Amino acid sequence: MKIGFFQFAPQFGKRRENLKAVAEVLANVSVDLLVLPELFNTGYLFTSKQDLIELAEPVPGPTTLFLQQLTERKQMSIVHGIAERAQDKFYNSAVLLGPDGVRAVYRKAHLFSEEKLYFAPGDSPFQVYNIGQVKIGILVCFDYWFPEAVRQLALQGAQIICHPSNLVLPGYGQQVTRVRAMENRMFWVLCNRTGKDVREGRELAFTGESQIVSPKGEILAKAGLDEQSLQIVEIEPRAADDKRVTSMNDLFKDRRTDLYTR
Amino acid sequence: MKIGFFQFAPQFGKRRENLKAVAEVLANVSVDLLVLPELFNTGYLFTSKQDLIELAEPVPGPTTLFLQQLTERKQMSIVHGIAERAQDKFYNSAVLLGPDGVRAVYRKAHLFSEEKLYFAPGDSPFQVYNIGQVKIGILVCFDYWFPEAVRQLALQGAQIICHPSNLVLPGYGQQVTRVRAMENRMFWVLCNRTGKDVREGRELAFTGESQIVSPKGEILAKAGLDEQSLQIVEIEPRAADDKRVTSMNDLFKDRRTDLYTR
Repeated sequence: MKIGFFQFAPQFGKRRENLKAVAEVLANVSVDLLVLPELFNTGYLFTSKQDLIELAEPVPGPTTLFLQQLTERKQMSIVHGIAERAQDKFYNSAVLLGPDGVRAVYRKAHLFSEEKLYFAPGDSPFQVYNIGQVKIGILVCFDYWFPEAVRQLALQGAQIICHPSNLVLPGYGQQVTRVRAMENRMFWVLCNRTGKDVREGRELAFTGESQIVSPKGEILAKAGLDEQSLQIVEIEPRAADDKRVTSMNDLFKDRRTDLYTR
Repeated sequence: MKIGFFQFAPQFGKRRENLKAVAEVLANVSVDLLVLPELFNTGYLFTSKQDLIELAEPVPGPTTLFLQQLTERKQMSIVHGIAERAQDKFYNSAVLLGPDGVRAVYRKAHLFSEEKLYFAPGDSPFQVYNIGQVKIGILVCFDYWFPEAVRQLALQGAQIICHPSNLVLPGYGQQVTRVRAMENRMFWVLCNRTGKDVREGRELAFTGESQIVSPKGEILAKAGLDEQSLQIVEIEPRAADDKRVTSMNDLFKDRRTDLYTR
């Protein structure tokens, strides 16, 4: 299975340009599962509810319909972060889009900083989704801080975590998600963005270094701090099913759930 | 508060020499809380139950009585790993010894590899202990793989994790425990050993690099791969009480316990 990420610098409020960047980079590429950044089509730095009223979309909606031309033609899946509108609420969501359309919508459960002003937190149980025989889990950016969230997916058999992000601290998320991959023995595709959002005198810079990590913590692919980068690696997802550390230790069977009471 | 570790190479089965090494290094030193390696008085590579019958001790016992001469005179605490005998069972334990004697015994909950042949797993809830106003938690070596175990202590207010270890993979435990310190915002004293145990044609080498990490993940002290090393740093334990990541994010209050069901 070929999995990858596309790290780039979305432009705030320019959906057409952001979608075009994805279509261009995929033109001559073959990949089974691609991860895009958090809020890849709108940019990140919302400064009012009005921003969301203008930019958020329903799912399915314009972005998924555009991307589905790619997933259908290439028989691939794309996990991408978008600002979702659902009735009168907005969510910081990630969509799993397959060749036949929307397969799943995950709504970010742990909101970061001012996201709390504009987005509603996700309230559905963490869940794994199948792509053929392969089980994937989805998390969005700040979710990675919470080992419990990751464990929910791991214990359901997730083999690959797709992790659209807009990280602002350099190196931090990379270090932690590498440990998350190791402690759960899963593949982890961290797709971060680069560039800046500048709005109303405020500026927020993003830190790149997207990476793909193996269940043993090997870095299979890594982008630079500030470059546009499409990277694809071939993996055997079943490598994530082996939770043994030694012949006598299995990371899941060794959990002392009798002692985890809080 | 001054906290530290003493990384050295215990000799298998030579309790007298191992205790003497600790007494010598502490002779002219002032420290409030010192962490020693796992099984520091006996060595690690048990190859039969008979080994434990010969070397394990009750608590209190010869080792704690010896060390109490130090803790009493210096008004300090020592967290140290020992093979504990209790009735007909053996535990891979860590003892918190204060100036007045044994304050707590923690029995390793997650046993590694062949330890399962000789030791019984701990079966008491994870618990924090007070040294004056300071709250400490204890884990032994392989326990660190399980984020849930660490969280049990963090949620009870542990400010410093004392972590006697006998690590065999170079760098791995250091990387993971640094993330544990960050994700829970606690100090972490990892005391690993060095040297080898050679027994009955088998050899096991240990990987040093003991370290002290701050709640923000800074490395405050670090020993080499293969050196005897006493390191002490001065900390403000209350720094561990601040779980904020941003003015709107608190790592504990942001936990979505409603969604952590497994």
